Amino acid sequence: MIETRLTKFFDIEFPILQAPMAFAAGGALASAVTQAGGLGFIGGGYGDAAWLKQEFKAAGNTHIGCGFITWSLAKQPELLTQALEKSPKAIFLSFGNPAPFVSEIKAAGVPLICQVQTLKDAKHAIASGADIIVAQGAEAGGHGEKRATFTLVPEVADYIANAAPEVLLVAAGGIADGRGLAAGLMLGADGVLVGSRFWAAKEALVHPAVLKAAIGASGDDTLRTSVIDIVRGRDWEERYDCRVLDNRFTAEWHGNEAGLKNDKAAHEKWQQAALDGNPAIANGIVGEAVGLIHDIVPAKDIVRQMVEQAKTSLKRY
Amino acid sequence: MIETRLTKFFDIEFPILQAPMAFAAGGALASAVTQAGGLGFIGGGYGDAAWLKQEFKAAGNTHIGCGFITWSLAKQPELLTQALEKSPKAIFLSFGNPAPFVSEIKAAGVPLICQVQTLKDAKHAIASGADIIVAQGAEAGGHGEKRATFTLVPEVADYIANAAPEVLLVAAGGIADGRGLAAGLMLGADGVLVGSRFWAAKEALVHPAVLKAAIGASGDDTLRTSVIDIVRGRDWEERYDCRVLDNRFTAEWHGNEAGLKNDKAAHEKWQQAALDGNPAIANGIVGEAVGLIHDIVPAKDIVRQMVEQAKTSLKRY
Repeated sequence: MIETRLTKFFDIEFPILQAPMAFAAGGALASAVTQAGGLGFIGGGYGDAAWLKQEFKAAGNTHIGCGFITWSLAKQPELLTQALEKSPKAIFLSFGNPAPFVSEIKAAGVPLICQVQTLKDAKHAIASGADIIVAQGAEAGGHGEKRATFTLVPEVADYIANAAPEVLLVAAGGIADGRGLAAGLMLGADGVLVGSRFWAAKEALVHPAVLKAAIGASGDDTLRTSVIDIVRGRDWEERYDCRVLDNRFTAEWHGNEAGLKNDKAAHEKWQQAALDGNPAIANGIVGEAVGLIHDIVPAKDIVRQMVEQAKTSLKRY
Repeated sequence: MIETRLTKFFDIEFPILQAPMAFAAGGALASAVTQAGGLGFIGGGYGDAAWLKQEFKAAGNTHIGCGFITWSLAKQPELLTQALEKSPKAIFLSFGNPAPFVSEIKAAGVPLICQVQTLKDAKHAIASGADIIVAQGAEAGGHGEKRATFTLVPEVADYIANAAPEVLLVAAGGIADGRGLAAGLMLGADGVLVGSRFWAAKEALVHPAVLKAAIGASGDDTLRTSVIDIVRGRDWEERYDCRVLDNRFTAEWHGNEAGLKNDKAAHEKWQQAALDGNPAIANGIVGEAVGLIHDIVPAKDIVRQMVEQAKTSLKRY
């Protein structure tokens, strides 16, 4: 038990949310995290009704939440309705304007979590009606922006304390162990969001060969790039890029995005490698915290170890 | 009193080091930080024998350290000899290969602090003989690299614990208040290095108009750029850029570095603005933590407030 405003809000044991990682976070992972005392999320990602249905089913009766990439959800808003029918513990919106979805979420009586990357976006999300702000630093895996967890969290905490003290705050980006959990709480967050560490959980939907490449890597080996969005044909705003594990493919193409846009054969090569699980070409989507991850274990062990290490760290001073 | 390996090593009250910021950190600031219970450093920067002499004199008999930009020190290594004659508490080397300077520093019986930005450079600094590693994240003001404090610190901590447990570790980048101090300790550091917050201390050598512009800014308003190195004719390796407060000048030139290199009039305009203290053109050299800084106060108040807030934060859990 580590009691914070977040654990009370969701009636959970530990202030640990699992990031709704597109493709990687299905029902098995989400339910395992919840059963371990945190709160798990299905990664609705770009949006796929059949996949969403399947993964809610895989989660069974466990209480979980569901996340979406906001700008992509705007193209098929019916997926929000589909998710809300499953009575999720929360809806988690990232990357885009949450405002158009707020009324439907509130009408369903479901809490709204908004992930933001700047103070400016935090203000907008709070004004739009977010119940919980996830302040995500650029050390995070996957999509994000430029600011760092270490400064974004306390700056948003100060804003919340002055302008909207009822709003909860969660730290995201770079948190993979108990030290990160303890540090997030010290910075003023009510809890943490964990991505990469759960990406390397036994229950995550990630190819074993890609996981194996990540286990041996340092945080030095990741970079933020738009290369993998180009090869996947994902239409992200320029302000967002994606942190991945560097490999032969990004070494070749990062910095030559214009050339890559016109090289369809390279796109197909990457896509095939993703299906085959070839980490020399298809990049693992993982954050700087990869340097703190050395094994692939069940989500319940991850939660237990994080909590124990956080308690030990907090007791030291 | 917050006792850590760092406070014992230097026989100081609080595990707070003041960053040896080029131009901004003179003897008055360094001695004020030491007198407040931390450890202050003169920012030897690019190297200027007369300035160094003057600032050591300004520090009086207070115990302080001295920092240098390593690649610049290599051009005038006699400055190291000059600094060592003042019996500094430590020599602090950043940005470049420390190895050529280790034997002279060790022969003088002075501890060597090496600031690094990657795990790879931490390993090199330790192999070269560093007594203390400062792991600096990209949220820091001034020069740096890409990795974030939140992941770099624990990853270096793990390496030190396994490979060189006698080496001390200090967290840098984004630390401006007691929450940051507490978070740094949680991440496994023995103490913290504080730049921007002391840059905005009464004793710092920064133009009041530039300080005033910073006080009103958010961390959203900073960026990493090479623009100010181009206009100052500073020959930095490409891997290092410099976080500054965005303004009209960087809005115009960031992204057009090639054009700026050939526009000598723009260089002169920036340099004149730096002398005049015109923050619309000459950028404040400050980190993302600027969003946590709202006043210009004596260094002793900064230290006292950091310690009090850290203790309060640590007691909460």
